[in-house]
Amino acid sequence: MSTLVLLRHGQSVWNAENLFTGWVDVPLSEKGEGEARRGGELLAESGVLPDVVHTSLLRRAIATANLALDAADRHWIPVVRDWRLNERHYGALQGKDKKQTLETYGEEQFMLWRRSYDTPPPEIEKGTEFSQDADPRYAGIDAPLTECLADVVDRFLPYWHESVVPDLRAGRTVLLAAHGNSLRALVKYLDGISDADIAGLNIPTGIPLVYDLNSEFMPSTPGGRYLDPDAAQEAIAGVANQGR
Amino acid sequence: MSTLVLLRHGQSVWNAENLFTGWVDVPLSEKGEGEARRGGELLAESGVLPDVVHTSLLRRAIATANLALDAADRHWIPVVRDWRLNERHYGALQGKDKKQTLETYGEEQFMLWRRSYDTPPPEIEKGTEFSQDADPRYAGIDAPLTECLADVVDRFLPYWHESVVPDLRAGRTVLLAAHGNSLRALVKYLDGISDADIAGLNIPTGIPLVYDLNSEFMPSTPGGRYLDPDAAQEAIAGVANQGR
Repeated sequence: MSTLVLLRHGQSVWNAENLFTGWVDVPLSEKGEGEARRGGELLAESGVLPDVVHTSLLRRAIATANLALDAADRHWIPVVRDWRLNERHYGALQGKDKKQTLETYGEEQFMLWRRSYDTPPPEIEKGTEFSQDADPRYAGIDAPLTECLADVVDRFLPYWHESVVPDLRAGRTVLLAAHGNSLRALVKYLDGISDADIAGLNIPTGIPLVYDLNSEFMPSTPGGRYLDPDAAQEAIAGVANQGR
Repeated sequence: MSTLVLLRHGQSVWNAENLFTGWVDVPLSEKGEGEARRGGELLAESGVLPDVVHTSLLRRAIATANLALDAADRHWIPVVRDWRLNERHYGALQGKDKKQTLETYGEEQFMLWRRSYDTPPPEIEKGTEFSQDADPRYAGIDAPLTECLADVVDRFLPYWHESVVPDLRAGRTVLLAAHGNSLRALVKYLDGISDADIAGLNIPTGIPLVYDLNSEFMPSTPGGRYLDPDAAQEAIAGVANQGR
């Protein structure tokens, strides 16, 4: 038995402004910082103490991990960072207003980009304001120009097997501090959710989602458990209404 | 040629209260957080961009690294943490007021404990308020109960050779976010300072100290260079007067 903790970053300044973010490296909002600290308090209160943390390369997940671990008195554990935990690359939509995008392209196209499993938005143009092609943190990797959720699954699962499972096998409680779509990609795999049904799954921000894993590193209890189930339920309803 | 950056953590709440800290894990003060951010701005302004950061296991160094790297837009680099970068263990003095200790024990004993190379304070009693024997982060290591600077040199230099030099050899700019005495231990080695003369060396908080290293990983220019030399000069004078 090993323990996996998923933590979606708290509200970012672009979440607050309702913009598509993807790989644009925006900071947490003040509310998001509070959510991250609260996430750490939940870990401490429930005695779920991470032995190692894996984060994306984006500051909203990194800051969430830092604040949560400090609140849980686990700031000193080993850290691993990898781009494969990043949010889905939102292509040409990065930096665009969600409501305006909905109005411009209509409900069907908007929901296809946001929630379909295999339809990516148009590619982002290299060298533009919200592209990452000149970003040194992605030097040496074949960074995407857009992604659908299937692409995120394809890049995340090799990382799961190569880098996360060995930590679990060593008996470590692993914290993954990441993003809505990279965590959905993992939950899809862990809970065996279909390509169609994953569209309906929302993961709330800042509330640790704990999976007890069996010897095959699959969930003992499907769906795991949120450390604050009531707040999770409320937040899930909120996420579903984004862009409205 | 490779580049090493030393960054002593900003003011902690116990620095502000003039208490011996050692391995007690106190947070940065608000002033200290500002110093850390300023340190990161100096890195960005001077174009000294760390590729990897090594920190101690203490939150004042960890938070300093987090804040500085975020300010320098290098929050995404790999992180290594190790107890061998920790501050000197101050033994039974941990948690004690510096001024009161000076009055109780007199100038000579006080300066011997603070500045002699090889006289450690009395050992801390296990299980007391400011001891670390039950701290999970030191499980599995033979944690000291007190240390003199010579002890810090003895535990730090193996880490330097085993863990820092390989990063430098790989061409990485290395940031060490650590403490007054762990950094003095390293500077003593790098600059070939005698056991007697190291007593007079103070490293200011929050101001990056940059060493360009030759192919032997020794300084091209002894003493390195502070990224804000005027502020460093002023701060060095301040540190020397602590406890007065």
